[in-house]
Amino acid sequence: MPEPIRFDAWACPLPLRDSPTIVMGHGGGGRLSGDLLEHLFLPAFRNEALEARGDAAVVGVPAGRLAFATDAHVVRPLFFPGGSIGELAVNGTVNDLAMAGARPLHLSASFILEEGLALDRLAAIVERMAGAARRAGVAIVTGDTKVVERGHGDGCYITTSGIGVVPDGRSVGPERARAGDAVLVSGTIGDHGVAILSVREGLEFESAIESDTAPLTDLVERLFAASVDVRTLRDPTRGGLAATLVELAERSGLGVVLDEGAIPVRPEVRGACELLGLDPLMIANEGKLVAIVPEDQAEPALEAMRGSAIGRQAVRIGTVVAEHPGTVVMKTGIGGRRVVTLPLGEQLPRIC
Amino acid sequence: MPEPIRFDAWACPLPLRDSPTIVMGHGGGGRLSGDLLEHLFLPAFRNEALEARGDAAVVGVPAGRLAFATDAHVVRPLFFPGGSIGELAVNGTVNDLAMAGARPLHLSASFILEEGLALDRLAAIVERMAGAARRAGVAIVTGDTKVVERGHGDGCYITTSGIGVVPDGRSVGPERARAGDAVLVSGTIGDHGVAILSVREGLEFESAIESDTAPLTDLVERLFAASVDVRTLRDPTRGGLAATLVELAERSGLGVVLDEGAIPVRPEVRGACELLGLDPLMIANEGKLVAIVPEDQAEPALEAMRGSAIGRQAVRIGTVVAEHPGTVVMKTGIGGRRVVTLPLGEQLPRIC
Repeated sequence: MPEPIRFDAWACPLPLRDSPTIVMGHGGGGRLSGDLLEHLFLPAFRNEALEARGDAAVVGVPAGRLAFATDAHVVRPLFFPGGSIGELAVNGTVNDLAMAGARPLHLSASFILEEGLALDRLAAIVERMAGAARRAGVAIVTGDTKVVERGHGDGCYITTSGIGVVPDGRSVGPERARAGDAVLVSGTIGDHGVAILSVREGLEFESAIESDTAPLTDLVERLFAASVDVRTLRDPTRGGLAATLVELAERSGLGVVLDEGAIPVRPEVRGACELLGLDPLMIANEGKLVAIVPEDQAEPALEAMRGSAIGRQAVRIGTVVAEHPGTVVMKTGIGGRRVVTLPLGEQLPRIC
Repeated sequence: MPEPIRFDAWACPLPLRDSPTIVMGHGGGGRLSGDLLEHLFLPAFRNEALEARGDAAVVGVPAGRLAFATDAHVVRPLFFPGGSIGELAVNGTVNDLAMAGARPLHLSASFILEEGLALDRLAAIVERMAGAARRAGVAIVTGDTKVVERGHGDGCYITTSGIGVVPDGRSVGPERARAGDAVLVSGTIGDHGVAILSVREGLEFESAIESDTAPLTDLVERLFAASVDVRTLRDPTRGGLAATLVELAERSGLGVVLDEGAIPVRPEVRGACELLGLDPLMIANEGKLVAIVPEDQAEPALEAMRGSAIGRQAVRIGTVVAEHPGTVVMKTGIGGRRVVTLPLGEQLPRIC
């Protein structure tokens, strides 16, 4: 579990040079940029490649297939129940790599800071990134920082990119799905989006709803270790389970039938969605995966995922079918059927 | 030479869905995000890895050392004489890789767009990225797009990351510099910064000053092909030649003596700097490199660089010395000496 860090408890670790906040010069490539590197980024991320301070990090890799991913993070607010932009930025890219069947190795981090951002707030974000990287087993080996004027940013935007090794024999993708395959999800959906919304809108729920931000690497490794012939992996982030499954159906040329009653949603998330008129199927998740596996391997796959703390509630939620190619159909609780559509945009902007 | 592209000549290639501008939904992961991918990014960047549309691109790499770099780009304005944020974003990361001695292979591109950005403006930026990638011989294989509300961005911020292969036997870094080594620069300095400044401040110069944005890969390959024992490579971007050389001196534990009269500055750049009270040594370049090479290989190295269109004006500008470690000293035109210092911030913010 992530250790709780309160950013207000932080003593600012930087020589202040007259300012406890980010100034334009922190992005200028001179002494102030050097301060950030020496006193903030290096101590937090410490590793050999980063400490070489080159324009690029040089790392060793085995021959073979490499996964390469990037994700921009603009979540608002920067801190929320269960996490911050720091954990999201690390886990987002780690999970993009894991969904390609890769073992994530190295991350880059690029910061676009807004003039006036408090340095202790930045320090808290960076420390949370470092913690998330440790938990995911990756190193942040290279980075960049730019500063924009007040009113041209929102505190802190972070783009991470990552590389990971795809072990021989692993091949995942929508084109590998077959009619009859089982559709699995690793746990409850909607937690991240509702956690963000609750703090953004100042809503109070009976029990706190926390973001599920987490690295999915352990779940993926358990699936492959159990010799499951994993056809496809996706993490249902922006656009939620709906966008992920519609995209899978469209890309595979097959249909998907979902069992509404089987889809795990925490009661407080369901309640919040009803209150706010939101569809849990369209809400972002940041620590869940959808796996398509052969019908007869559904049970071993679920067992494998349930062995991990973040996969305890893994369940089967549907089936890949040859009928209605490109379309996702949901069997509803009262015996009806409805077509699940891809949202046009997003119910909740700036969710990650 | 980059073909001139006028963004106002562009017909918007997107199904508009009622809007010729970026709306929040373009960052939502639904149909509108899909539109951008299908109708803008894929046609411009077209390659197999990107077209697989996975969360991560999967690419083959040989065993060995890989360079990995990232750069955020927040330049203002987005278009300027000689280039745009698009060329900068590609060349910036390509050059970070080249400065590690690597051959750049693959890039990622992450866009943070501001609500209200004209789609034809984005299309022009993307097309210029595609052109720059072709010229640099790299493929943009993966990406991400987020949208922030009006007043929380500045049209378009782009972070690119890249990977490249470091061929066996190449080893560059400040620790390889030796007293007596020659300090070379591949051409005139200050062009990029003054080009940006001229358009930002609405200044008119007698002849247009253009950004030097260009990939440095050809220069680097020519140096190694000429069997030069390249000790160190750096591109003097933010903070200019001053920041690059002071950092080299500090990291190598050696001193540098520069010959002011030898440093190539275009007369119109020199004139603009005098007018504005700027020091050309501290102004950003986006298509120049500094190479440290053994004394007796200075001439072959210069000849190698001069064989490339962007290296015609390559010259020796100084010497690495054992005296005054960590310090750069400039011999001035009138026979004096002054210490070159690292700027605190940047004379020109948002330069790249």
